Amino acid sequence: MADLAQAVMQRIEALAQISEEPDRLTRTFASSAMRRANELVGSWMSEAGMAVRVDGIGNLIGHYPAAQPDGKILLLGSHLDTVRDAGKFDGALGVLVAIACVQQLDENKIRLPFAIEVVGFADEEGVRYQTAYLGSRALAGTFNAADLERTDARGLTLAEAIREFGGNADALASAKLDPGRLLGYAEVHIEQGPVLEQKRLAVGVVTAIAGQARVRVRFVGRAGHAGTVPMNLRRDALCSAAEFVLAIEALAQKRGGLVATVGEITALPGTSNVIPGEARLSLDVRHPDDTVRRRASEELKTRAEEIAAERGVQVSWELVHEMPAVVCDRRLTAALNEAVKRRQKDSPLLASGAGHDAAAMAAVTPVTMLFVRCQGGISHHPDESATLEDVRVAIAVMNDFLQQLDKSA
Amino acid sequence: MADLAQAVMQRIEALAQISEEPDRLTRTFASSAMRRANELVGSWMSEAGMAVRVDGIGNLIGHYPAAQPDGKILLLGSHLDTVRDAGKFDGALGVLVAIACVQQLDENKIRLPFAIEVVGFADEEGVRYQTAYLGSRALAGTFNAADLERTDARGLTLAEAIREFGGNADALASAKLDPGRLLGYAEVHIEQGPVLEQKRLAVGVVTAIAGQARVRVRFVGRAGHAGTVPMNLRRDALCSAAEFVLAIEALAQKRGGLVATVGEITALPGTSNVIPGEARLSLDVRHPDDTVRRRASEELKTRAEEIAAERGVQVSWELVHEMPAVVCDRRLTAALNEAVKRRQKDSPLLASGAGHDAAAMAAVTPVTMLFVRCQGGISHHPDESATLEDVRVAIAVMNDFLQQLDKSA
Repeated sequence: MADLAQAVMQRIEALAQISEEPDRLTRTFASSAMRRANELVGSWMSEAGMAVRVDGIGNLIGHYPAAQPDGKILLLGSHLDTVRDAGKFDGALGVLVAIACVQQLDENKIRLPFAIEVVGFADEEGVRYQTAYLGSRALAGTFNAADLERTDARGLTLAEAIREFGGNADALASAKLDPGRLLGYAEVHIEQGPVLEQKRLAVGVVTAIAGQARVRVRFVGRAGHAGTVPMNLRRDALCSAAEFVLAIEALAQKRGGLVATVGEITALPGTSNVIPGEARLSLDVRHPDDTVRRRASEELKTRAEEIAAERGVQVSWELVHEMPAVVCDRRLTAALNEAVKRRQKDSPLLASGAGHDAAAMAAVTPVTMLFVRCQGGISHHPDESATLEDVRVAIAVMNDFLQQLDKSA
Repeated sequence: MADLAQAVMQRIEALAQISEEPDRLTRTFASSAMRRANELVGSWMSEAGMAVRVDGIGNLIGHYPAAQPDGKILLLGSHLDTVRDAGKFDGALGVLVAIACVQQLDENKIRLPFAIEVVGFADEEGVRYQTAYLGSRALAGTFNAADLERTDARGLTLAEAIREFGGNADALASAKLDPGRLLGYAEVHIEQGPVLEQKRLAVGVVTAIAGQARVRVRFVGRAGHAGTVPMNLRRDALCSAAEFVLAIEALAQKRGGLVATVGEITALPGTSNVIPGEARLSLDVRHPDDTVRRRASEELKTRAEEIAAERGVQVSWELVHEMPAVVCDRRLTAALNEAVKRRQKDSPLLASGAGHDAAAMAAVTPVTMLFVRCQGGISHHPDESATLEDVRVAIAVMNDFLQQLDKSA
């Protein structure tokens, strides 16, 4: 048997060559690059003994049969689309590790009591239509038909893009998998963060995918001449915002598992010699427990109001996006945890701050996730990387996980 | 005798109608609006008994003779150009109050031992050529001939604009007034800040025009995914910048007369779900004492470096502009102070945080300035205003000031 980890690394490289842009990796939903990626990955699925199909929205699915014809289905997978100027591992790693596991079963002529379907989702990043999880939401029965009217940068609707790709937009409403036939969904993904590297561990089990709130905060004070208004007569909106940025940081540092980020800030009018009369900022708050997240948001809102009151400025608070947390399945996660413990000294339990296909799939079946160490926590960037040795551990863990499920099935 | 203050208010309104833009007040250097303003203000100078001329750069000058032919010259004035979408009082008030004072002398047939020249400077705001004090620098002998090559938005050079206006660019190098013939320069100007309003006083004496430093500060940390990087592993450039913004505010609040402002701030990459890897901000520091200002800047630089070191980020500091302070003349200012004390219960001594023609004129003759209360501190805005009563006080104070100089001359 060839070295599966080495094969995965080679396939990562080959897949990274398939891009819609000449000098960098960009592979968006229903693009011709995505068609070529599906063809290449589909050929690897076939080699691994799977029957290959592409569904109505463009998800690539490889089916490896169960020992018995009435066996349930375990879904493995991740996404094959990428962000612009992407790394090679985000999404692709999960699909290729899953294929490697099936390949190992096939080479050893092992059939499990359940079928395995490896899914390469057609859209997780949402680059082309600004709406994430198109692929997994179709299978989970949460596809929003209104999204079919969305247009891409060239004005092509989602419905047209699906048709052009050879899919079937009309069938998406009925594409939902039958939950009664599913055992669950397991996804391998690079961590996209620095925790495993910090802990010097190859892999870790994800217990939950954090819920998220995105808020627009606006402080309105009074603009004025930077030379003529004394400090004690100012109502500087940016100073209020700065105090709030530090309050956000302080609160998040105190609460385990909470992350809170100000990624955008603007001072208006935005001239070096004018005291800002207005400051706008974005606030992104995440926690795997929605109650903790909502409480933190409430506290931050109160804090913003206190800062505003103390400084004689106005503040407004607009919740622009909210996504509840997804808790990974206890039974699947316990099995994955057992498998990890056999392969490394410790099995850290991680919360995923980023969204994943597993979050969408949780609507139709129990989910679990394995994170793989990611150098420097760098992701969504060409420097994104995982090592051969860590990929080897991930494959071994997933194989053990399948054995574990076999025993308990 | 007509009510001089009312006349000044009416003239303010009339002058505000002369604009190069249809629905707002904009009057830039050497524009046709400026030519019409010079004609109108020149007619008022003539009415007040002055001989009127326009000099080589377009300054409007009215001469009111001394009692003796060998009398020195006291310059009074301010500028007739405006910013875009300007208020009516900035600049115009000083010229019109000066004319009113001369008019009162003329109506009472009073000649002082010194001549009075009222100057309406052609360019203080620098809107058209991005270089302030063109008018006063020409008279002060600090005109920079290299500026003649500057072009406006339509590509016309400053030299061409002067020629088109009927001026004489070649003569500017030799336009410097003879310091030996000058008594000094006194300027009335709206405060453009809230201090007099706060003190409930109509006018105040300016002791110095603040020096200024403008710095670009840049923090570089590490960008990262807002969902996946735990708080304790972040190197958030914006949090560093926020801490610095508050440190700036705190230092300036502690130091009397210091003002320090962050008017611009940018977080990069500037996306709500990405931890800022870089934050850039502008810092404007002013104080009437250059030593105090430079020491404050040094302390702030050190503070920025400390914050950066504590947070594991890099900081860079670039001084992009520095202008030394101008101290008003002790003798003239004492005379003005006496005059103020006769007209209101207190004579507050103010530092001007904004630049004025007086700052440029200080290169050729002693200067003094009188500030007039400005509603809400609002300036460079159509809402800019001063009251009839305050203008009346300003005229009375300037008349008393002239009497005071008469006695001491």
